[in-house]
Amino acid sequence: MNGAESLVHSLLKSGVTTCFTNPGTSEMHFVAALDRIPGIHCVLGLFEGVVTGAADGYARMAGKPAATLLHCGPGLANGLANLHNARRAATPVVNIVGDQATYHRPLDAPLTADTEGFARGVGPWVRTAMDVKTVGADAAAAVQAAMVAPGQVATLILPSDTSWNDGGIVADALPVLPTPTSSPDQIEAAANVLRRGGQGVVLLLGGVALHEEGLALAHRIQAATGCRIVAQGSNARMARGQGRLSVERVPYVVDVAVKAMAGTKQLILAGSRKPVTFFAYPNKPQTSIPDDAEIHVLARPEQDIVEALARLADLLGCPNVAPPDNGSRPEAGRGAPTPEAIAATLGALMPEGAIIADESVTFGRGFFANTKAAPQHDWLNVTGGAIGGGMPMATGAAIGAPGRRVINMQADGSAMYTVQSLWTQAREKLDVTTVLLSNRKYQILLGELANVGANPGRTALDMMDLGNPDIDWCKLAGSMGVEAARADTADAFGDLLAHSLKRSGPFLIELMI
Amino acid sequence: MNGAESLVHSLLKSGVTTCFTNPGTSEMHFVAALDRIPGIHCVLGLFEGVVTGAADGYARMAGKPAATLLHCGPGLANGLANLHNARRAATPVVNIVGDQATYHRPLDAPLTADTEGFARGVGPWVRTAMDVKTVGADAAAAVQAAMVAPGQVATLILPSDTSWNDGGIVADALPVLPTPTSSPDQIEAAANVLRRGGQGVVLLLGGVALHEEGLALAHRIQAATGCRIVAQGSNARMARGQGRLSVERVPYVVDVAVKAMAGTKQLILAGSRKPVTFFAYPNKPQTSIPDDAEIHVLARPEQDIVEALARLADLLGCPNVAPPDNGSRPEAGRGAPTPEAIAATLGALMPEGAIIADESVTFGRGFFANTKAAPQHDWLNVTGGAIGGGMPMATGAAIGAPGRRVINMQADGSAMYTVQSLWTQAREKLDVTTVLLSNRKYQILLGELANVGANPGRTALDMMDLGNPDIDWCKLAGSMGVEAARADTADAFGDLLAHSLKRSGPFLIELMI
Repeated sequence: MNGAESLVHSLLKSGVTTCFTNPGTSEMHFVAALDRIPGIHCVLGLFEGVVTGAADGYARMAGKPAATLLHCGPGLANGLANLHNARRAATPVVNIVGDQATYHRPLDAPLTADTEGFARGVGPWVRTAMDVKTVGADAAAAVQAAMVAPGQVATLILPSDTSWNDGGIVADALPVLPTPTSSPDQIEAAANVLRRGGQGVVLLLGGVALHEEGLALAHRIQAATGCRIVAQGSNARMARGQGRLSVERVPYVVDVAVKAMAGTKQLILAGSRKPVTFFAYPNKPQTSIPDDAEIHVLARPEQDIVEALARLADLLGCPNVAPPDNGSRPEAGRGAPTPEAIAATLGALMPEGAIIADESVTFGRGFFANTKAAPQHDWLNVTGGAIGGGMPMATGAAIGAPGRRVINMQADGSAMYTVQSLWTQAREKLDVTTVLLSNRKYQILLGELANVGANPGRTALDMMDLGNPDIDWCKLAGSMGVEAARADTADAFGDLLAHSLKRSGPFLIELMI
Repeated sequence: MNGAESLVHSLLKSGVTTCFTNPGTSEMHFVAALDRIPGIHCVLGLFEGVVTGAADGYARMAGKPAATLLHCGPGLANGLANLHNARRAATPVVNIVGDQATYHRPLDAPLTADTEGFARGVGPWVRTAMDVKTVGADAAAAVQAAMVAPGQVATLILPSDTSWNDGGIVADALPVLPTPTSSPDQIEAAANVLRRGGQGVVLLLGGVALHEEGLALAHRIQAATGCRIVAQGSNARMARGQGRLSVERVPYVVDVAVKAMAGTKQLILAGSRKPVTFFAYPNKPQTSIPDDAEIHVLARPEQDIVEALARLADLLGCPNVAPPDNGSRPEAGRGAPTPEAIAATLGALMPEGAIIADESVTFGRGFFANTKAAPQHDWLNVTGGAIGGGMPMATGAAIGAPGRRVINMQADGSAMYTVQSLWTQAREKLDVTTVLLSNRKYQILLGELANVGANPGRTALDMMDLGNPDIDWCKLAGSMGVEAARADTADAFGDLLAHSLKRSGPFLIELMI
């Protein structure tokens, strides 16, 4: 058995069943092994940003890592931006990066690069498999590392000779390392704050606190104590819809966030961190939390957050409560395609179990209110601010949760970074509806430029303008085998969304906003 | 004057007049400064790989660096693959990477990443501008660093507060650092080898030895001594065509390269390195040079190569010679679109001063023979093996050498990595003809997989297949504002190529091969 075969067998033993690939020359033995050994579903991406973003989306839904297959340092580099997003989402990802043979690296052939150096920025676990006898064990260790709570990116670099040499040994799965739990002091301190109650007690949820079980516990705590429940600004996955606690997020825009969080006196962190602004601005605060607020850590992101919430609810003696009533499902929007109208249509039409992959950037900031009474669904954010995460995330989520419709609310500027995702959606016949929000500009930057104060001239405006030439999204989707149509109104959007939900496979709606 | 303004003024003083941009929020003051201060041509790319690859192509033709404008660590990461190519081409590039304010970085906001760490893999000069008073000087130092012979990637990280703070100071250009020259011993040793002559003396050219003047000197030396002249496998820029020495390159495929370089007894390096194979293969040599060949370094890549060739020619007393006769211009190819026929058409039709941006990968290996008697032109290779360099390089070359037609011989698989280049070509109305070599597969990988020996099954074949769905390149180009048409034969290709050369602006020919 060669190294590549032992690697594939070991990945399988560790539960990896999906590999997003963009292979190159140095990975041919690994490709041949994936070919010979059944069990791993290989999904080709035509650019590495698609591969890594899909691995992120997959694991958010599947709850276990996919492998990626990348080619040398530059191939990894192309995938780093979405690995950065995965790092911020605490998503488990196992990168397999093929590279020069161990004895060829010193010759510094053209494609030789600092692969380990590139990998270090996106996760703490980076290893080069130097020996055929241990590459199987390396794979098991990589999966174990990826699954360390709350999840992280692990990169295993695979020199080609480690792959082709004979003598590979299959490794058994390593145990998932135990997740540390909160200390009694952490629970007690949070309980005391909540018992005192009063205005200004905020429980800030992050990570798995936003999945079904965590939300139900938060709802019990809220019902018993009257505290306010808020979610972090960007989240890997939020359970939403009828019967689930509807949770607002800390807003993106500094002034709006400061207003939203004003009055916070006691901030209890449950798998979250104290909110900081995305960027600093002259003479603006760096956090939306008032300076005099006290911070209490119920559970750090790497602790068992749901367990901590359960202990907290028990300690407080919170009774069980009926699921929250989020009101009635909205009517589909009409007329102009405003954010509110589009969100209403989304809320009116999305099917039970939908997955919303949200890279709507400026346009989508108001989507939550009109979707809280939709059927139960999951909402995925691009977590690291590296744009181009949405389409790959949607692609991976569809593979990680087969049978569920993915609706990708996608800004046009961001979409262009990883537009090759559409091809993979067509090839894999994925049930993804892309709602392409076509405003033909980097709207977020126009807002930021206005903040700078200058009256922008041609040079600045050109740098924020996606027109001249306009991108024809229907043609672009069609060129990669994805059917598409254009909508100018909320009504037309509703018709196309309904149409896309009735058929299988991908569909793109270019929504002119 | 704020820091951003002092930065723009300092770049201008150092001769930077072009900036390829993909800005984000943290760069708004820099954008505003570019807007207010005339003199820098800003070119928007919709993905950072376009930006950095264009900066590479620009500097290869303009002989001076462009600036890039990138957004934080993930934005830089998206540009790393083509910066790797630029590093291997020894292209001067000045990256300006906007980043978190100095005092915001410790808060680890979502977009915070190890920007310096990402930059270190592509060039030795990495600096974070920590102070508004010195950011102008930092810019001058970055340009100076980029121009250190033979050229390199310099990265200046620009925290947003350094940009917006008041107190910027404009810096004068720093002198170009002197290029070290070869020692008399280096020249003497090479001269002795050439004087002894005999079979098996090879002068291997790299870097600027392949520009006009270096080639003329090599031709004189060849005429006087009978040595063989060979170029490195991939080169930043080769002067070619009528009246210029036609130089073969070290082939890519190991066995072919070994055969081509067999009999080499004395290898003289002129701005080149001893050839190594792109990858290692089981039981195959790592270099095409026979083990018993003696190596002599006339000039290292960082030495003044042309000066060394001139001194060598003088020492040898090489007389002036008439320019070489490369034969008569080929007739355009006919019938099936073979590599030879396509090369003949290219040779027959390319205009004087054409720039060939070559990312033709497998299909283009035989292009040289039928283009050596074309009008004078420059030939640019993707130098670092990171695919996706061709289209951005063509884009940048057109801006770096206005008035000259760029012909981008472009493999389809590689094109998909940076396909957003077409939009920039349309916006800037660049005279680029893209010859999209559509074989709908990763042909190079099929060859490599065959070498592995296995009979590939569905899983492996799917990973090398760009069909299912087929990419419609005419539609794809059209979606981004680039006119396009399809050719199935060499004749039809010739008609479309001639058509594209008569019009201005970009055009794409999808050549079915």
